[in-house]
Amino acid sequence: MTSFAIIGHLAHTNADFSLNDLPGSGGRMDILCRCVNTSLFLSHDLRRDVACYLVLCGGPVPPKTIRFSGDAVRSLSPDERSAGALIKKALNLPAGSKFRDAAPGLSVRNGGLAQLMTEHVFGVLDEKGTDIRTAGIIPDAFLLSDHLNFTQDEELQVQQCPRFSVGPECIHADHTITIVHNELDRRRCGWK
Amino acid sequence: MTSFAIIGHLAHTNADFSLNDLPGSGGRMDILCRCVNTSLFLSHDLRRDVACYLVLCGGPVPPKTIRFSGDAVRSLSPDERSAGALIKKALNLPAGSKFRDAAPGLSVRNGGLAQLMTEHVFGVLDEKGTDIRTAGIIPDAFLLSDHLNFTQDEELQVQQCPRFSVGPECIHADHTITIVHNELDRRRCGWK
Repeated sequence: MTSFAIIGHLAHTNADFSLNDLPGSGGRMDILCRCVNTSLFLSHDLRRDVACYLVLCGGPVPPKTIRFSGDAVRSLSPDERSAGALIKKALNLPAGSKFRDAAPGLSVRNGGLAQLMTEHVFGVLDEKGTDIRTAGIIPDAFLLSDHLNFTQDEELQVQQCPRFSVGPECIHADHTITIVHNELDRRRCGWK
Repeated sequence: MTSFAIIGHLAHTNADFSLNDLPGSGGRMDILCRCVNTSLFLSHDLRRDVACYLVLCGGPVPPKTIRFSGDAVRSLSPDERSAGALIKKALNLPAGSKFRDAAPGLSVRNGGLAQLMTEHVFGVLDEKGTDIRTAGIIPDAFLLSDHLNFTQDEELQVQQCPRFSVGPECIHADHTITIVHNELDRRRCGWK
Protein backbone atom coordinates (compact mmCIF):
# COMPACT_ATOMS: atom_id res chain seq x y z
CA MET A 1 0.00 0.00 0.00
CA THR A 2 1.38 3.40 -1.00
CA SER A 3 -0.02 6.62 0.39
CA PHE A 4 0.37 10.22 -0.70
CA ALA A 5 -0.76 13.12 1.45
CA ILE A 6 -0.87 16.61 -0.01
CA ILE A 7 -1.38 19.73 2.06
CA GLY A 8 -3.63 22.27 0.37
CA HIS A 9 -2.90 25.38 2.37
CA LEU A 10 -5.74 27.43 0.91
CA ALA A 11 -8.05 24.59 -0.18
CA HIS A 12 -11.67 25.23 0.77
CA THR A 13 -13.26 23.13 3.46
CA ASN A 14 -16.82 23.47 2.30
CA ALA A 15 -18.38 22.66 -1.03
CA ASP A 16 -19.20 26.19 -2.14
CA PHE A 17 -16.43 26.40 -4.74
CA SER A 18 -17.10 26.25 -8.47
CA LEU A 19 -15.93 23.44 -10.72
CA ASN A 20 -15.53 26.18 -13.33
CA ASP A 21 -12.95 27.94 -11.17
CA LEU A 22 -11.04 25.35 -9.14
CA PRO A 23 -7.93 27.55 -8.80
CA GLY A 24 -9.70 30.70 -7.60
CA SER A 25 -12.89 29.70 -5.84
CA GLY A 26 -11.45 26.41 -4.58
CA GLY A 27 -8.22 27.82 -3.13
CA ARG A 28 -5.98 26.09 -5.69
CA MET A 29 -8.13 22.98 -5.55
CA ASP A 30 -6.88 22.31 -9.09
CA ILE A 31 -3.51 21.28 -7.64
CA LEU A 32 -5.14 18.73 -5.35
CA CYS A 33 -7.27 17.40 -8.21
CA ARG A 34 -4.16 16.79 -10.29
CA CYS A 35 -2.53 15.07 -7.32
CA VAL A 36 -5.51 12.70 -7.15
CA ASN A 37 -4.95 11.99 -10.84
CA THR A 38 -1.23 11.27 -10.60
CA SER A 39 -1.63 9.26 -7.39
CA LEU A 40 -4.30 6.95 -8.72
CA PHE A 41 -4.24 6.64 -12.49
CA LEU A 42 -2.56 4.15 -14.74
CA SER A 43 -3.42 4.06 -18.43
CA HIS A 44 -6.96 2.68 -18.60
CA ASP A 45 -6.74 1.51 -15.01
CA LEU A 46 -6.38 2.65 -11.41
CA ARG A 47 -3.58 1.99 -8.99
CA ARG A 48 -5.59 -0.16 -6.60
CA ASP A 49 -2.94 -0.19 -3.87
CA VAL A 50 -2.75 3.58 -3.45
CA ALA A 51 -4.51 5.99 -1.12
CA CYS A 52 -4.41 9.74 -1.67
CA TYR A 53 -5.06 12.06 1.27
CA LEU A 54 -5.94 15.70 0.65
CA VAL A 55 -5.39 17.89 3.70
CA LEU A 56 -7.58 20.96 3.22
CA CYS A 57 -6.45 23.93 5.28
CA GLY A 58 -8.49 26.79 3.81
CA GLY A 59 -11.70 28.37 5.10
CA PRO A 60 -14.24 28.14 6.50
CA VAL A 61 -13.76 25.10 8.81
CA PRO A 62 -10.16 23.81 8.51
CA PRO A 63 -8.63 21.37 8.65
CA LYS A 64 -10.40 18.52 6.89
CA THR A 65 -8.91 15.44 5.29
CA ILE A 66 -10.35 13.68 2.25
CA ARG A 67 -9.21 10.18 1.36
CA PHE A 68 -9.38 8.66 -2.13
CA SER A 69 -8.82 4.88 -2.06
CA GLY A 70 -7.71 3.35 -5.34
CA ASP A 71 -9.13 -0.05 -4.47
CA ALA A 72 -12.69 1.19 -4.11
CA VAL A 73 -13.19 4.58 -5.78
CA ARG A 74 -15.81 4.79 -8.53
CA SER A 75 -16.84 7.46 -11.03
CA LEU A 76 -13.38 9.04 -11.03
CA SER A 77 -12.07 10.20 -14.39
CA PRO A 78 -8.63 11.72 -15.01
CA ASP A 79 -9.83 15.29 -15.61
CA GLU A 80 -9.65 17.89 -12.85
CA ARG A 81 -13.42 18.46 -12.77
CA SER A 82 -14.05 14.80 -12.03
CA ALA A 83 -11.85 14.80 -8.92
CA GLY A 84 -13.24 18.23 -8.03
CA ALA A 85 -16.82 16.94 -8.17
CA LEU A 86 -15.95 14.10 -5.79
CA ILE A 87 -14.21 16.53 -3.42
CA LYS A 88 -17.39 18.62 -3.37
CA LYS A 89 -19.38 15.48 -2.64
CA ALA A 90 -17.12 14.66 0.30
CA LEU A 91 -17.34 18.21 1.64
CA ASN A 92 -21.13 18.10 1.51
CA LEU A 93 -21.09 15.32 4.10
CA PRO A 94 -21.03 16.45 7.75
CA ALA A 95 -17.55 15.46 8.92
CA GLY A 96 -16.67 13.94 12.28
CA SER A 97 -13.43 12.88 13.88
CA LYS A 98 -13.36 9.55 11.99
CA PHE A 99 -13.47 8.95 8.25
CA ARG A 100 -17.01 8.69 6.89
CA ASP A 101 -17.75 7.42 3.39
CA ALA A 102 -19.19 9.98 1.01
CA ALA A 103 -19.06 7.51 -1.89
CA PRO A 104 -17.19 4.26 -2.61
CA GLY A 105 -13.51 4.86 -1.98
CA LEU A 106 -14.11 8.48 -0.95
CA SER A 107 -14.21 9.55 2.68
CA VAL A 108 -13.81 12.65 4.80
CA ARG A 109 -13.04 13.60 8.38
CA ASN A 110 -12.13 16.64 10.43
CA GLY A 111 -8.47 17.01 11.31
CA GLY A 112 -5.33 17.47 9.30
CA LEU A 113 -1.63 16.76 9.37
CA ALA A 114 -1.31 16.11 13.12
CA GLN A 115 -3.73 13.18 12.93
CA LEU A 116 -2.22 11.79 9.73
CA MET A 117 1.21 11.87 11.35
CA THR A 118 0.01 9.43 14.02
CA GLU A 119 -1.08 6.95 11.33
CA HIS A 120 1.74 7.04 8.75
CA VAL A 121 5.51 7.17 8.75
CA PHE A 122 5.95 9.77 6.07
CA GLY A 123 8.84 10.57 3.84
CA VAL A 124 8.67 14.24 2.98
CA LEU A 125 9.15 15.16 -0.66
CA ASP A 126 11.35 18.21 -0.71
CA GLU A 127 14.00 19.65 -3.02
CA LYS A 128 16.64 19.40 -0.30
CA GLY A 129 16.12 15.70 0.42
CA THR A 130 18.10 12.60 -0.52
CA ASP A 131 17.86 11.68 -4.19
CA ILE A 132 15.09 9.09 -4.32
CA ARG A 133 16.90 7.12 -7.03
CA THR A 134 19.93 6.51 -4.84
CA ALA A 135 18.09 6.08 -1.54
CA GLY A 136 18.44 2.58 -0.12
CA ILE A 137 15.04 2.33 1.43
CA ILE A 138 12.00 4.31 0.37
CA PRO A 139 8.97 4.66 2.65
CA ASP A 140 5.48 3.76 1.50
CA ALA A 141 3.89 7.05 2.58
CA PHE A 142 4.83 10.44 1.22
CA LEU A 143 3.93 13.95 2.26
CA LEU A 144 3.94 16.93 -0.10
CA SER A 145 2.97 20.55 0.02
CA ASP A 146 0.96 22.34 -2.67
CA HIS A 147 2.28 25.50 -4.34
CA LEU A 148 3.20 26.99 -0.94
CA ASN A 149 5.99 25.96 1.39
CA PHE A 150 5.23 24.06 4.57
CA THR A 151 4.30 26.45 7.36
CA GLN A 152 6.54 26.81 10.38
CA ASP A 153 4.13 24.68 12.40
CA GLU A 154 4.08 21.97 9.73
CA GLU A 155 7.89 22.03 9.54
CA LEU A 156 8.01 21.40 13.28
CA GLN A 157 5.65 18.45 12.93
CA VAL A 158 7.67 16.79 10.16
CA GLN A 159 11.18 17.64 11.33
CA GLN A 160 11.94 14.00 12.19
CA CYS A 161 10.77 12.66 8.81
CA PRO A 162 13.31 11.59 6.20
CA ARG A 163 13.30 13.83 3.14
CA PHE A 164 13.53 12.79 -0.47
CA SER A 165 14.09 14.76 -3.63
CA VAL A 166 13.00 13.55 -7.06
CA GLY A 167 15.35 15.65 -9.17
CA PRO A 168 17.31 18.86 -9.62
CA GLU A 169 14.39 21.08 -10.64
CA CYS A 170 11.68 22.49 -8.41
CA ILE A 171 8.48 21.01 -9.81
CA HIS A 172 4.76 20.76 -9.08
CA ALA A 173 3.40 18.39 -6.43
CA ASP A 174 1.50 16.27 -8.94
CA HIS A 175 4.59 15.89 -11.13
CA THR A 176 6.56 14.82 -8.07
CA ILE A 177 4.03 12.06 -7.36
CA THR A 178 4.45 10.75 -10.92
CA ILE A 179 8.21 10.45 -10.45
CA VAL A 180 7.85 8.72 -7.08
CA HIS A 181 5.49 6.19 -8.66
CA ASN A 182 7.99 5.61 -11.45
CA GLU A 183 10.75 4.89 -8.92
CA LEU A 184 8.48 2.53 -6.95
CA ASP A 185 7.31 0.79 -10.16
CA ARG A 186 10.90 0.29 -11.26
CA ARG A 187 12.04 -1.14 -7.93
CA ARG A 188 9.03 -3.45 -7.73
CA CYS A 189 9.57 -4.74 -11.27
CA GLY A 190 13.35 -5.04 -11.12
CA TRP A 191 14.08 -2.17 -13.53
CA LYS A 192 17.13 -0.07 -12.80
CA MET B 1 15.31 23.01 -27.07
CA THR B 2 13.06 20.09 -26.16
CA SER B 3 9.86 19.34 -28.04
CA PHE B 4 6.91 17.15 -27.22
CA ALA B 5 4.25 16.28 -29.79
CA ILE B 6 1.06 14.58 -28.67
CA ILE B 7 -1.46 13.09 -31.05
CA GLY B 8 -5.04 13.71 -30.00
CA HIS B 9 -6.92 11.22 -32.12
CA LEU B 10 -10.38 12.56 -31.31
CA ALA B 11 -9.44 16.14 -30.37
CA HIS B 12 -11.74 18.71 -31.94
CA THR B 13 -10.42 20.95 -34.67
CA ASN B 14 -12.78 23.81 -34.14
CA ALA B 15 -13.49 25.85 -31.04
CA ASP B 16 -17.04 24.66 -30.40
CA PHE B 17 -16.15 22.49 -27.42
CA SER B 18 -16.99 23.46 -23.85
CA LEU B 19 -14.40 24.23 -21.19
CA ASN B 20 -16.88 22.61 -18.80
CA ASP B 21 -16.61 19.30 -20.67
CA LEU B 22 -13.13 18.97 -22.13
CA PRO B 23 -13.21 15.14 -22.14
CA GLY B 24 -16.58 14.77 -23.88
CA SER B 25 -17.17 17.81 -26.04
CA GLY B 26 -13.46 18.33 -26.76
CA GLY B 27 -12.67 14.74 -27.78
CA ARG B 28 -10.46 14.06 -24.74
CA MET B 29 -9.01 17.55 -24.98
CA ASP B 30 -8.36 17.20 -21.22
CA ILE B 31 -5.46 14.86 -22.01
CA LEU B 32 -3.85 17.41 -24.30
CA CYS B 33 -4.36 20.16 -21.71
CA ARG B 34 -2.52 18.10 -19.12
CA CYS B 35 0.26 17.44 -21.61
CA VAL B 36 0.67 21.21 -22.06
CA ASN B 37 0.95 21.46 -18.28
CA THR B 38 3.57 18.75 -17.84
CA SER B 39 5.55 19.91 -20.89
CA LEU B 40 5.83 23.53 -19.81
CA PHE B 41 5.50 23.98 -16.07
CA LEU B 42 8.09 24.15 -13.37
CA SER B 43 7.11 25.23 -9.89
CA HIS B 44 6.34 28.96 -10.15
CA ASP B 45 8.00 29.09 -13.55
CA LEU B 46 7.83 27.86 -17.13
CA ARG B 47 10.28 25.67 -18.99
CA ARG B 48 11.38 28.33 -21.48
CA ASP B 49 13.25 25.89 -23.72
CA VAL B 50 10.30 23.62 -24.45
CA ALA B 51 7.74 23.54 -27.23
CA CYS B 52 4.59 21.45 -27.01
CA TYR B 53 2.80 20.45 -30.21
CA LEU B 54 -0.79 19.22 -30.05
CA VAL B 55 -1.82 17.30 -33.15
CA LEU B 56 -5.61 17.46 -33.31
CA CYS B 57 -7.14 14.71 -35.42
CA GLY B 58 -10.83 14.96 -34.56
CA GLY B 59 -13.65 16.60 -36.49
CA PRO B 60 -14.58 18.73 -38.26
CA VAL B 61 -11.46 19.80 -40.17
CA PRO B 62 -8.50 17.57 -39.20
CA PRO B 63 -5.63 17.63 -38.86
CA LYS B 64 -4.51 20.83 -37.17
CA THR B 65 -1.41 21.43 -35.07
CA ILE B 66 -1.22 23.86 -32.17
CA ARG B 67 2.15 24.92 -30.80
CA PHE B 68 2.76 26.21 -27.27
CA SER B 69 6.19 27.81 -26.91
CA GLY B 70 7.53 28.03 -23.37
CA ASP B 71 9.73 31.02 -24.16
CA ALA B 72 6.85 33.24 -25.21
CA VAL B 73 3.51 31.94 -23.94
CA ARG B 74 1.49 34.23 -21.66
CA SER B 75 -1.69 33.80 -19.62
CA LEU B 76 -1.16 30.09 -19.19
CA SER B 77 -1.95 28.65 -15.78
CA PRO B 78 -1.47 25.02 -14.75
CA ASP B 79 -5.17 24.09 -14.68
CA GLU B 80 -6.79 22.27 -17.59
CA ARG B 81 -9.26 25.06 -18.35
CA SER B 82 -6.44 27.55 -18.84
CA ALA B 83 -4.76 25.46 -21.53
CA GLY B 84 -8.20 24.65 -22.95
CA ALA B 85 -9.08 28.33 -23.27
CA LEU B 86 -5.86 28.97 -25.21
CA ILE B 87 -6.56 25.98 -27.46
CA LYS B 88 -9.99 27.46 -28.22
CA LYS B 89 -8.34 30.79 -28.99
CA ALA B 90 -5.97 29.10 -31.43
CA LEU B 91 -8.82 27.20 -33.10
CA ASN B 92 -10.77 30.43 -33.57
CA LEU B 93 -8.01 31.69 -35.87
CA PRO B 94 -8.33 30.68 -39.55
CA ALA B 95 -5.44 28.26 -40.06
CA GLY B 96 -3.17 28.09 -43.09
CA SER B 97 -0.32 25.84 -44.02
CA LYS B 98 2.17 27.78 -41.87
CA PHE B 99 2.01 28.54 -38.14
CA ARG B 100 0.11 31.74 -37.37
CA ASP B 101 0.20 33.35 -33.95
CA ALA B 102 -3.09 33.34 -32.06
CA ALA B 103 -1.43 34.84 -28.96
CA PRO B 104 2.14 35.15 -27.67
CA GLY B 105 3.72 31.70 -27.74
CA LEU B 106 0.56 30.12 -29.17
CA SER B 107 0.22 29.30 -32.86
CA VAL B 108 -1.80 27.08 -35.15
CA ARG B 109 -1.60 25.60 -38.64
CA ASN B 110 -3.30 22.99 -40.75
CA GLY B 111 -1.51 19.67 -41.07
CA GLY B 112 -0.53 16.99 -38.63
CA LEU B 113 2.05 14.30 -38.03
CA ALA B 114 3.37 14.09 -41.59
CA GLN B 115 4.48 17.71 -41.56
CA LEU B 116 5.92 17.52 -38.04
CA MET B 117 7.96 14.48 -39.09
CA THR B 118 9.76 16.59 -41.68
CA GLU B 119 10.80 19.09 -38.98
CA HIS B 120 11.80 16.93 -36.01
CA VAL B 121 13.71 13.73 -35.41
CA PHE B 122 11.36 12.15 -32.94
CA GLY B 123 11.89 9.53 -30.34
CA VAL B 124 8.61 7.70 -29.85
CA LEU B 125 7.51 7.13 -26.26
CA ASP B 126 6.14 3.62 -26.13
CA GLU B 127 6.00 0.83 -23.57
CA LYS B 128 8.05 -1.46 -25.82
CA GLY B 129 10.96 0.96 -26.25
CA THR B 130 14.43 1.10 -24.72
CA ASP B 131 14.48 2.11 -21.09
CA ILE B 132 15.12 5.87 -21.19
CA ARG B 133 17.28 5.68 -18.04
CA THR B 134 19.75 3.32 -19.65
CA ALA B 135 19.68 4.79 -23.16
CA GLY B 136 23.00 6.29 -24.18
CA ILE B 137 21.64 9.13 -26.25
CA ILE B 138 18.20 10.66 -25.89
CA PRO B 139 16.65 12.77 -28.63
CA ASP B 140 15.35 16.27 -28.00
CA ALA B 141 11.96 15.68 -29.61
CA PHE B 142 9.42 13.15 -28.40
CA LEU B 143 6.21 11.87 -29.89
CA LEU B 144 3.36 10.41 -27.84
CA SER B 145 -0.15 9.22 -28.43
CA ASP B 146 -3.14 10.13 -26.27
CA HIS B 147 -5.33 7.43 -24.70
CA LEU B 148 -5.52 5.55 -28.01
CA ASN B 149 -2.80 3.60 -29.76
CA PHE B 150 -1.10 5.01 -32.85
CA THR B 151 -3.14 4.21 -35.95
CA GLN B 152 -1.76 1.88 -38.59
CA ASP B 153 -0.95 4.88 -40.77
CA GLU B 154 0.84 6.65 -37.92
CA GLU B 155 2.80 3.50 -37.11
CA LEU B 156 3.99 3.42 -40.71
CA GLN B 157 5.13 7.03 -40.50
CA VAL B 158 7.13 6.50 -37.29
CA GLN B 159 8.50 3.03 -37.96
CA GLN B 160 12.07 4.33 -38.34
CA CYS B 161 11.99 6.34 -35.11
CA PRO B 162 13.82 5.05 -32.03
CA ARG B 163 11.45 4.08 -29.22
CA PHE B 164 11.84 4.78 -25.54
CA SER B 165 9.99 3.50 -22.51
CA VAL B 166 9.87 5.38 -19.21
CA GLY B 167 9.03 2.45 -16.94
CA PRO B 168 7.35 -0.90 -16.46
CA GLU B 169 3.78 0.38 -16.13
CA CYS B 170 1.52 1.64 -18.90
CA ILE B 171 0.83 5.25 -17.90
CA HIS B 172 -0.85 8.41 -19.20
CA ALA B 173 0.82 10.61 -21.82
CA ASP B 174 1.16 13.58 -19.47
CA HIS B 175 2.76 11.41 -16.78
CA THR B 176 5.21 10.11 -19.38
CA ILE B 177 6.27 13.66 -20.24
CA THR B 178 6.99 14.36 -16.56
CA ILE B 179 9.32 11.36 -16.38
CA VAL B 180 11.12 12.32 -19.60
CA HIS B 181 11.68 15.82 -18.21
CA ASN B 182 13.05 14.29 -15.01
CA GLU B 183 15.54 12.19 -16.99
CA LEU B 184 16.60 15.20 -19.08
CA ASP B 185 16.91 17.40 -15.97
CA ARG B 186 19.06 14.81 -14.25
CA ARG B 187 21.38 14.36 -17.21
CA ARG B 188 21.74 18.12 -17.71
CA CYS B 189 22.53 18.68 -14.01
CA GLY B 190 24.81 15.68 -13.54
CA TRP B 191 22.45 13.71 -11.31
CA LYS B 192 22.44 9.95 -11.71
